[in-house]
Amino acid sequence: MKSKYSFCIDVIKSRKSIRNFEYKKLKDEVIIELLECGRWAPSGNNNQPWFVCVVTHPTVKRLLAEQTKYSQPIIEASVVFVVFLDKERCYDRTKDLQSIGAFAENILLGAHSMGLGGVWIGEILNNKEKVNEIFKLSVEKYELMYVLAIGAIAAVTEEDTEKPERIRRELEEFTTWY
Amino acid sequence: MKSKYSFCIDVIKSRKSIRNFEYKKLKDEVIIELLECGRWAPSGNNNQPWFVCVVTHPTVKRLLAEQTKYSQPIIEASVVFVVFLDKERCYDRTKDLQSIGAFAENILLGAHSMGLGGVWIGEILNNKEKVNEIFKLSVEKYELMYVLAIGAIAAVTEEDTEKPERIRRELEEFTTWY
Repeated sequence: MKSKYSFCIDVIKSRKSIRNFEYKKLKDEVIIELLECGRWAPSGNNNQPWFVCVVTHPTVKRLLAEQTKYSQPIIEASVVFVVFLDKERCYDRTKDLQSIGAFAENILLGAHSMGLGGVWIGEILNNKEKVNEIFKLSVEKYELMYVLAIGAIAAVTEEDTEKPERIRRELEEFTTWY
Repeated sequence: MKSKYSFCIDVIKSRKSIRNFEYKKLKDEVIIELLECGRWAPSGNNNQPWFVCVVTHPTVKRLLAEQTKYSQPIIEASVVFVVFLDKERCYDRTKDLQSIGAFAENILLGAHSMGLGGVWIGEILNNKEKVNEIFKLSVEKYELMYVLAIGAIAAVTEEDTEKPERIRRELEEFTTWY
C-alpha cells in the first residue's frame, strides 16, 4: 500500500522549473507556508544562514527584473523570494551554501505540492550588488544567493514539456556501489 | 480538501536528523529510489555536479566511520551515501554547492517519506582527502561534500525529540516583506 507520505517522492520526481505564470494574488498564508518549508531546511550546526526579501509589489519586482535576463518570470510571478546568505550566521562557506540550496529546494517542493510553479534564478548573481542596493542591504552582511519566482502555472506549452532540463544522467553514470 | 501532494509539506516540516538506527538490510530498489530523489534535484545549467559512493559493506562503513567523530550512525546505517562534487562538471562553485545541498535534501525527504531516518554529516570534511583515498578517487576531480547515513529508525528516546536542532528562527527574524 502506498503510504500518504510516499506522495512526497512523486512531488520530488515531478518537480520542474516553471517560467510562465498567470498572475494570481496569493494569500499571505500561502506565502507563509512556502517560507515555512524553507524554514525547516537542515543546516550545519543548525545555523540557518538565510535571509529573505519577500516581494509581491509590482514596482519592486520590476526593479529586480532589470537585474537579470530572466526578467519575465519575475514580473509575472505572484511572489518572488530574494534569498541572501546572512554572513554573520555563517560558519563554513561550503556547508552554508549547501543549506541555502536545501532551503530553495524545500520552497520549490512546497510550491509544487500546492499546485504552484516556480523557478530558481541564479543568473541574477551577475548583478548581486545591485540587488543589495534595491533592498538597502549591506554587502558585508548579506550576499545574494538566488531568486525564486513562484506563481500560478500558465497553460503548459509543448516547448515547456520538452525542455532538456528534464533530462537527468542515469544513476549508473554518477554512482559506484560498495 | 487536502490534496495528496500537500502531504509533502508535512514531510518537509517533520523531517529531522535521525542518528540511531536499528540495522535492517534495505532492498536495492529502496536505495535506488533514494538516489532517484537526489537525481531529480535542480542544478544550475542542469549540470548535475554530483558523484556518489553508495556504501552498504560493513568494512567500508567502518573505514568511513574512522574519518569522523560521528562514527556511530555510519556504522549502524543501512546505507551510507558519500557525496562528492564532480569538479569536471562544475561551472560556478556557489551554484554548484547549492545544487549539492538540494540533492541531499531530496534524499533526506525521500528517506523520511519511506519511514526511514537519516542524518547529514558534514564534519567528515575535516578528513576529506582520506575519504577520497578509501574510494581511490582523485582529489583533483572529486571533492567530498558530505555523507548521508540512512537507516531504520531505532526506538525514539526523549533526548532525540528535545534536541535543539528542532528549533528554528521565527519567520519574522529572517524575512522582510515588500
